[in-house]
Amino acid sequence: MAARERSKKVKARTVLIGLVQMRSRENPAENLTIAAHRIVALAKRGAKIICLPELFLTPYFCQRRDKHFFALAEPIPGPTSHVLADIARRNKVTIITSLFERARNNKFYNTALVLSPSGKINARYRKMHIPDDPHNYYDEAYYFSSGTQGTVTVRVGGIEVSPMICWDQWFPEGARSAAAGGAQIIFYPTAIGWQREDPRGVNKAEHGAWQTIQRAHAIANNVFVVAVNRVGKDDHLQFWGTSFVSDPYGAVIAKASSTKEEDLLVNCDLSLIAQMRRDWPFLKARRFSVRKQ
Amino acid sequence: MAARERSKKVKARTVLIGLVQMRSRENPAENLTIAAHRIVALAKRGAKIICLPELFLTPYFCQRRDKHFFALAEPIPGPTSHVLADIARRNKVTIITSLFERARNNKFYNTALVLSPSGKINARYRKMHIPDDPHNYYDEAYYFSSGTQGTVTVRVGGIEVSPMICWDQWFPEGARSAAAGGAQIIFYPTAIGWQREDPRGVNKAEHGAWQTIQRAHAIANNVFVVAVNRVGKDDHLQFWGTSFVSDPYGAVIAKASSTKEEDLLVNCDLSLIAQMRRDWPFLKARRFSVRKQ
Repeated sequence: MAARERSKKVKARTVLIGLVQMRSRENPAENLTIAAHRIVALAKRGAKIICLPELFLTPYFCQRRDKHFFALAEPIPGPTSHVLADIARRNKVTIITSLFERARNNKFYNTALVLSPSGKINARYRKMHIPDDPHNYYDEAYYFSSGTQGTVTVRVGGIEVSPMICWDQWFPEGARSAAAGGAQIIFYPTAIGWQREDPRGVNKAEHGAWQTIQRAHAIANNVFVVAVNRVGKDDHLQFWGTSFVSDPYGAVIAKASSTKEEDLLVNCDLSLIAQMRRDWPFLKARRFSVRKQ
Repeated sequence: MAARERSKKVKARTVLIGLVQMRSRENPAENLTIAAHRIVALAKRGAKIICLPELFLTPYFCQRRDKHFFALAEPIPGPTSHVLADIARRNKVTIITSLFERARNNKFYNTALVLSPSGKINARYRKMHIPDDPHNYYDEAYYFSSGTQGTVTVRVGGIEVSPMICWDQWFPEGARSAAAGGAQIIFYPTAIGWQREDPRGVNKAEHGAWQTIQRAHAIANNVFVVAVNRVGKDDHLQFWGTSFVSDPYGAVIAKASSTKEEDLLVNCDLSLIAQMRRDWPFLKARRFSVRKQ
């Protein structure tokens, strides 16, 4: 086959995405206040959809097994979702993040929310792929059950978005499921880095792989991919930062610092999606189906 | 989550792979002779598995709709597979390529073969994803039916390999299916390039995407990926060359020229696969199943 000549360029249809790359402090109230200020600042600059890192409200407690951390979980709707929904409503933006959910079925989940500009919970996605580190450096499986409801795609401000969470980003099936459901932008709130005692070469290879595989989801599905990571040290971990946005060619169109907190405001031209779905019709042409187990 | 500290390095288990990046001349007999010489040369240098580009036997005829080209198809087993099987046997190597198959069901397929060192057809895979260019620069759907049998993984010299073909490389499900079937190395005989009249920027973006998505298959499945492409001009097309091998981190460990015919001999340490399947157990942890439609 040949690379396709691109169809005649269609009219641009842009949306401004805000990425809040942050480190999380000990105090949840402080993290919520910081996140709120940064959301408001991005909204003032024109962001329409703003994404926070995974479990931004607390330090990354999954590095230790401690039953006391279950007290950090909250119902959804609950105190934090109420505050975030109110911020979304006041600032006329969509907010995407993940919270530690205490569900009514007595299970605990790592749950992404899409909070609409009208102040409602527009979508709830429970992390499906829960990492269970063979080296016991972190143990998410101790805290979280796997979501069983599959991916969720929801329309916000005329744009179809799908939130997933961190380890999900290593699984092409999740991205495919989201895109088959209509997603134009996939968001991955994330908390990923390296064990500080790891050899540097391994860390570099792993960091490269993390970017490559998400860029590939963008290519395979003709979508934009937004990864919003933590940054800085937290117990054994050094988070990678480098939050980024990939366009449907897998090109990184914006990337944050590897060491500092940073807000990114990124212009995504969604007309590229329709154009590429004509030129590279992978979604239509695929000969496999993907189903949640 | 955190990038994992790698398990203690296990004993290396290496295999030498040979990539024959070639341009195809008008005369099939000439192409077969050239391929044979290059296979023998790579075998003498120690290659155990040698891969040719997609449909290496002929020019890339799919750029034109012409019923006379159906005469290029042959049964499998047939004249070309016999010659290649004999070369494999005499040189104690495995050969992977694709041929234009005229099947007994009166359909035509783009079919990959794995020819064993004992001179047998060890596996036959019929290309599932057939590109159908919206701009009519090439029209594979005019010539080939889609394979309906799914991916094939086969053991050669103690190594599990799975052949797919060209456009299949844009579909993560194929790689997943192959890996779930046990593949350690996925081979993509390929004929990809760009329309010579395309803007250079688009070509660069598409070429980048082509490499990124295959590197991602290696990451998602903890396997090696081998892409063997044509090179040079052929009618409207300029093939990209840049045949490459990706390790399970998505790192390109060898890459050929973008303009010249070239043989690559690449050492792959398969112990990395077992190591990464412990550290990054994506295959085990996935929450979706992939099935051919």
